Amino acid sequence: MVRKPTPEDKFSFGLWTVGWSARDQFGEATRPDLDPVVSVHKLAELGASFVTFHDDDVVPFGSSATERDAILARFKDALAETGIKVEMVTTNTFTHPMFKDGAFTSNDRTVRRYALRKILRNVDLAAELDAKTFVMWGGREGAEYDASKDLYAAHARYAEGIDTVAGYIKSKGYDLKIALEPKPNEPRGDILLPTIGHALALIDRLENSDIVGLNPEVGHEQMAGLNYTTGLAQALWCEKLFHIDLNGQRSIKYDQDLVFGHGDLFSAFATVDLLENGFPSGGPKYTGPVHFDYKPSRTEGVEGVWESAAANMATYILLKERALAFRADPEVQEVLAAAGVFDLAKPTLDEGESLESFLANPAAYEDVDVDALGAREYHFVRLNQLALEHAIGAR
Amino acid sequence: MVRKPTPEDKFSFGLWTVGWSARDQFGEATRPDLDPVVSVHKLAELGASFVTFHDDDVVPFGSSATERDAILARFKDALAETGIKVEMVTTNTFTHPMFKDGAFTSNDRTVRRYALRKILRNVDLAAELDAKTFVMWGGREGAEYDASKDLYAAHARYAEGIDTVAGYIKSKGYDLKIALEPKPNEPRGDILLPTIGHALALIDRLENSDIVGLNPEVGHEQMAGLNYTTGLAQALWCEKLFHIDLNGQRSIKYDQDLVFGHGDLFSAFATVDLLENGFPSGGPKYTGPVHFDYKPSRTEGVEGVWESAAANMATYILLKERALAFRADPEVQEVLAAAGVFDLAKPTLDEGESLESFLANPAAYEDVDVDALGAREYHFVRLNQLALEHAIGAR
Amino acid sequence: MVRKPTPEDKFSFGLWTVGWSARDQFGEATRPDLDPVVSVHKLAELGASFVTFHDDDVVPFGSSATERDAILARFKDALAETGIKVEMVTTNTFTHPMFKDGAFTSNDRTVRRYALRKILRNVDLAAELDAKTFVMWGGREGAEYDASKDLYAAHARYAEGIDTVAGYIKSKGYDLKIALEPKPNEPRGDILLPTIGHALALIDRLENSDIVGLNPEVGHEQMAGLNYTTGLAQALWCEKLFHIDLNGQRSIKYDQDLVFGHGDLFSAFATVDLLENGFPSGGPKYTGPVHFDYKPSRTEGVEGVWESAAANMATYILLKERALAFRADPEVQEVLAAAGVFDLAKPTLDEGESLESFLANPAAYEDVDVDALGAREYHFVRLNQLALEHAIGAR
Amino acid sequence: MVRKPTPEDKFSFGLWTVGWSARDQFGEATRPDLDPVVSVHKLAELGASFVTFHDDDVVPFGSSATERDAILARFKDALAETGIKVEMVTTNTFTHPMFKDGAFTSNDRTVRRYALRKILRNVDLAAELDAKTFVMWGGREGAEYDASKDLYAAHARYAEGIDTVAGYIKSKGYDLKIALEPKPNEPRGDILLPTIGHALALIDRLENSDIVGLNPEVGHEQMAGLNYTTGLAQALWCEKLFHIDLNGQRSIKYDQDLVFGHGDLFSAFATVDLLENGFPSGGPKYTGPVHFDYKPSRTEGVEGVWESAAANMATYILLKERALAFRADPEVQEVLAAAGVFDLAKPTLDEGESLESFLANPAAYEDVDVDALGAREYHFVRLNQLALEHAIGAR
Repeated sequence: MVRKPTPEDKFSFGLWTVGWSARDQFGEATRPDLDPVVSVHKLAELGASFVTFHDDDVVPFGSSATERDAILARFKDALAETGIKVEMVTTNTFTHPMFKDGAFTSNDRTVRRYALRKILRNVDLAAELDAKTFVMWGGREGAEYDASKDLYAAHARYAEGIDTVAGYIKSKGYDLKIALEPKPNEPRGDILLPTIGHALALIDRLENSDIVGLNPEVGHEQMAGLNYTTGLAQALWCEKLFHIDLNGQRSIKYDQDLVFGHGDLFSAFATVDLLENGFPSGGPKYTGPVHFDYKPSRTEGVEGVWESAAANMATYILLKERALAFRADPEVQEVLAAAGVFDLAKPTLDEGESLESFLANPAAYEDVDVDALGAREYHFVRLNQLALEHAIGAR
Repeated sequence: MVRKPTPEDKFSFGLWTVGWSARDQFGEATRPDLDPVVSVHKLAELGASFVTFHDDDVVPFGSSATERDAILARFKDALAETGIKVEMVTTNTFTHPMFKDGAFTSNDRTVRRYALRKILRNVDLAAELDAKTFVMWGGREGAEYDASKDLYAAHARYAEGIDTVAGYIKSKGYDLKIALEPKPNEPRGDILLPTIGHALALIDRLENSDIVGLNPEVGHEQMAGLNYTTGLAQALWCEKLFHIDLNGQRSIKYDQDLVFGHGDLFSAFATVDLLENGFPSGGPKYTGPVHFDYKPSRTEGVEGVWESAAANMATYILLKERALAFRADPEVQEVLAAAGVFDLAKPTLDEGESLESFLANPAAYEDVDVDALGAREYHFVRLNQLALEHAIGAR
Repeated sequence: MVRKPTPEDKFSFGLWTVGWSARDQFGEATRPDLDPVVSVHKLAELGASFVTFHDDDVVPFGSSATERDAILARFKDALAETGIKVEMVTTNTFTHPMFKDGAFTSNDRTVRRYALRKILRNVDLAAELDAKTFVMWGGREGAEYDASKDLYAAHARYAEGIDTVAGYIKSKGYDLKIALEPKPNEPRGDILLPTIGHALALIDRLENSDIVGLNPEVGHEQMAGLNYTTGLAQALWCEKLFHIDLNGQRSIKYDQDLVFGHGDLFSAFATVDLLENGFPSGGPKYTGPVHFDYKPSRTEGVEGVWESAAANMATYILLKERALAFRADPEVQEVLAAAGVFDLAKPTLDEGESLESFLANPAAYEDVDVDALGAREYHFVRLNQLALEHAIGAR
Repeated sequence: MVRKPTPEDKFSFGLWTVGWSARDQFGEATRPDLDPVVSVHKLAELGASFVTFHDDDVVPFGSSATERDAILARFKDALAETGIKVEMVTTNTFTHPMFKDGAFTSNDRTVRRYALRKILRNVDLAAELDAKTFVMWGGREGAEYDASKDLYAAHARYAEGIDTVAGYIKSKGYDLKIALEPKPNEPRGDILLPTIGHALALIDRLENSDIVGLNPEVGHEQMAGLNYTTGLAQALWCEKLFHIDLNGQRSIKYDQDLVFGHGDLFSAFATVDLLENGFPSGGPKYTGPVHFDYKPSRTEGVEGVWESAAANMATYILLKERALAFRADPEVQEVLAAAGVFDLAKPTLDEGESLESFLANPAAYEDVDVDALGAREYHFVRLNQLALEHAIGAR
């Protein structure tokens, strides 16, 4: 049996996840709208420590100031009652028809300006609720058709928008960081910043890049056939892994948003291994909330919603136990050593080795036994089998 | 009929492309090895201006110094006779068994050091031949198994390797830039720097990043389901598009290396449109050689090799004519304007507009008619149909 | 300029295509609902000859019998006024929440029985409107989770459902054939009968297989990375190509439903070539309506809807002209012959050749010059380049 | 720890799997050729019961009759010494350059005839060795270019070839069945019979279809994004699952041939569940050998080859234990019932129910509470979580 979640697990859920009424591209809603206050209570009961939300998840688009205040007051009461905290807030710039060609990169400047205002307003709310991360998913920033977008201007506008928000955060002195969420496609044919890499490259060109990082999502990277764990690693290496979105995806297809582990299970094990154990020879480690961004399947009723929420946490807890055991196993450590995994931490050049002496060193080239190197046993498959057996609790 | 290539077209071919003897994963070579000297002559005849090569394409791995000199002398004669220039050189760090776990990121440090020496040696040759670009495709830098690689160390070693090479180039005063070539997978399960974005993000962390940019390949981006033209655009926006590899790919599958245009034809049109016309409202433009990195299909004999080489150039020339006509068409310009394509170049904030005044401006938020914006006609499909009709010569 | 469509083009549109109000998985509708009667008039104006529809496209789900009659009477008037005919009818068994686990293969038998009734009722309407094809897309027949479905029972129920409908058609003496529409995924994680092949195999096991065939859709096959034209060819070889759904898709991702040709353009050329010219050495040919099943992009307003409808027809007409010219070009015929394309029609064994004499014939094995065969020039790339140049009007 | 394999496990290995010398598209062999006799002994030691092979795996292409006899005699001795049996034989019609455009569907008739002879000769060997299955993978039957193949003729020739072989088997009275192995692409751009479905549909049109079935491979189906277990289920429903090829694949990319379970692990669990437990309410079951068709990664040396062979069997054994426990768990049975999984076995129409009475039955339509059906709880996510917890040994 799986142990209960604890605050140390730092589990967090988007309110739009359990709150999804299951209307999809081809069908009507199969579930009633959930009251966010009910969700907060229910998630607390299940063992979550945090919730997150888009502005419109809690306060319907178009609410008056008075309505907004009333809704937020009631929401804060629920937080206070349950001890649930808001660790992240995000803004919906994709549902309303006005955003059909994007928000920061819409060809329509009035839309761009409106989006910026909508986001800045929500930054204030994030700060007010003491959220530490402000996620930006530009789901509509993109195109279906190559000629419909000036792609230079699009990147410039995207950067302008993010930089403006980051500058605002700084000017207000908020303790808040921005985390961009890449996605390759859907709902646009091609979305700008399609992967972790593309988002990192944009961040590097921002004036306020210091407070802008990433919120990578399992399924989004896998929709491009990319290895999520490798992506997290590059983000960590760049010191830009500010937040994570865990869920499940089965191969390259539409965005499935399954429960974490219900997609590529062995890859989920590798992810938890990295998150919990860090890199084999040290390096930066992710210490933020474990945030689930999934959708309870459309076949599920309200009971199924909570079963699926619990399933995310149970899977994470199980994989965490296995990942800890994997690294603690002396046989694993032996095979890691035999595979040369620890050797990679050693720089290729010796400390202080000059290029001149390196170039003149026959041991580095002329005298190398290339055939012996070609025949080396790395035992990678044995190592992977040890990982698999730990992942499935067979060791 | 298609006009003949001219020097203004700047067509360039890898010697390994026409020289591929068509041995694949499942079958033996169907063609004899081609003498690089013959290829140089033949490509000159067909209208190419440049060739490029891996060290081992011209000088077989393991040749003695004397053999090497003789081979290179003969090769230079061919260049002199034909007027063909070497615009780019690259190093093979993937064929020999020693590189089975990578070169700069091999778990075996002896391999890493050997690879560095092999590359530095080839940098000298590139400079000697007056090449302007040094491409690095790290085809074996990666893994099949998540536990087999310390991914933090791997990124660090990759950066160390590139930075060392770039530092060497600078120390020698060579007029040479490095261009990294991303690829998501094959021959490794997951390759490091899988896309344009990931490579840009690594470059940004190099000490010598100023002389390191990209060499994106059509098929490699499409193997991740990404839009090649959008990738080029981000690379241009980052001022890092140093070189290009044109070819063809049909959907997400193994690396096909088809003739340019024989894959996603309409996407090839968009690429040529960007390369030849630049961005609609200006910005950086690619002005380097038009380099083809393809493989004549295994069904082809030697005649088919040259037919396929010619096909790359013919397709490019045709698409260039259509792309110029597309942008010159007043109806297209009209629809581009109606679609708001030119409006995107205008910054979202007015020049000098303060955040305070923006936040206080009801025209930016409170007074916006969101329904009208949602109903706006963008005419993107009409624009795309105009592009299609120009691409297929129907206007 | 593109010529106007004529009745000989047999263009047909689903009313749900132009009628899509552009509500998607992540956003609200951007267009008003279209009155089907208006669509009929508008499509007639643009040159279409036929419309098709799901029951619920014309008569909203849950309408009373009186409402239904009134709606249908008005709809028939529009048909009579415009001369537009209904060539195909289909049934919606995916939008209502009750179908969330499928219709014919729902785990809930009450749903299965309801779906059967809904479909049979619509068969009567199809017959009444003189439609010749009854399409069945089982979009919800599938699963996200392997354990949630008895896959033997699922195939049995699927077959039972189709056979029952086919038996009903026969018992009524309707001049109507069923065409199944395969799709690999979306909205279900895995849909039963994911490809042309899987659907053919199911049909072969039906009691009433004689009146059951296929309605393959471009994008659906391409979502599995499959070649649509090759799929059509196998369906034709099986004499089961009863209907087609043309649209556009760009690589393996969510179902895009772009305008025909706005996806993989060169592949669209090959499809039109097969549809218009048939196989090189003869065989069955598709002679039914040219049916478009696409979605006007969500960025489009109502004007864009009609622009996109027209674009489908224009592209088809253009590609048809090019395909005819391609096959009429003597140079193409020459290269087809050199490539051995016509030789494939010759059986491998001679007429009347016994296995005994074949096995004893050294010319078939012992005396074959395998090296010469390995070196044969097929000129496939040259042939493909000729196809490309015809496709883009450069010959 | 994992128990040792036993004869009841019926484990079988292709000699080309362990024997792969790790030459790939981009690199030279990293391992020496293995003597098939050594492989037989080693596989016996590890616990396998069977081996399989292509003709050329054991007898090099072009061997004289005397050489062939000597090689086979020595091979049979190894079988006798170890007790290993040959359960399947297959023919290589893809490595030699002559097959570059296919074997049964090559545009060159001399190639087609040669291929047929090569295969028939190997059928005799299969019978002589008492193999029960003759696998045919038409890896080169396909095309890169749409115009290069008469697709009607190609299907006709493919069918002719298979039917001739099947007819030969019958005429000889061999106790041997043919199993076709589908694959979507690689080494051809598009391979004919790309999936389980397409192959089934071709089989249905054979004269000798009774002895022709399928040999589906995990990775091949997953390369098209298809669910392998669902494919097996349709093959079983069609009574055509004659053989299986187990291995691992990570998403849609080149053919990886990883160890079973080292790809999509949870999907591997579902496959073993189907193979060992059959369908929930009964139906045909696979009872043949558990055959692994994988490649030891190129990073592995000879030790790694045997580690990887053992890993396939260990993973299968572990997943089998978990699959048995999954179905034996009363809680699982309860949730399966709640999910309606057993209800799907019940026909949609009652036994003897006429269409007339069904159409007149208001309980089937008019009186159905569609909203209640839409709100039904299926508990699919809970069921999947139970499967996951059993798969990873957490229950």
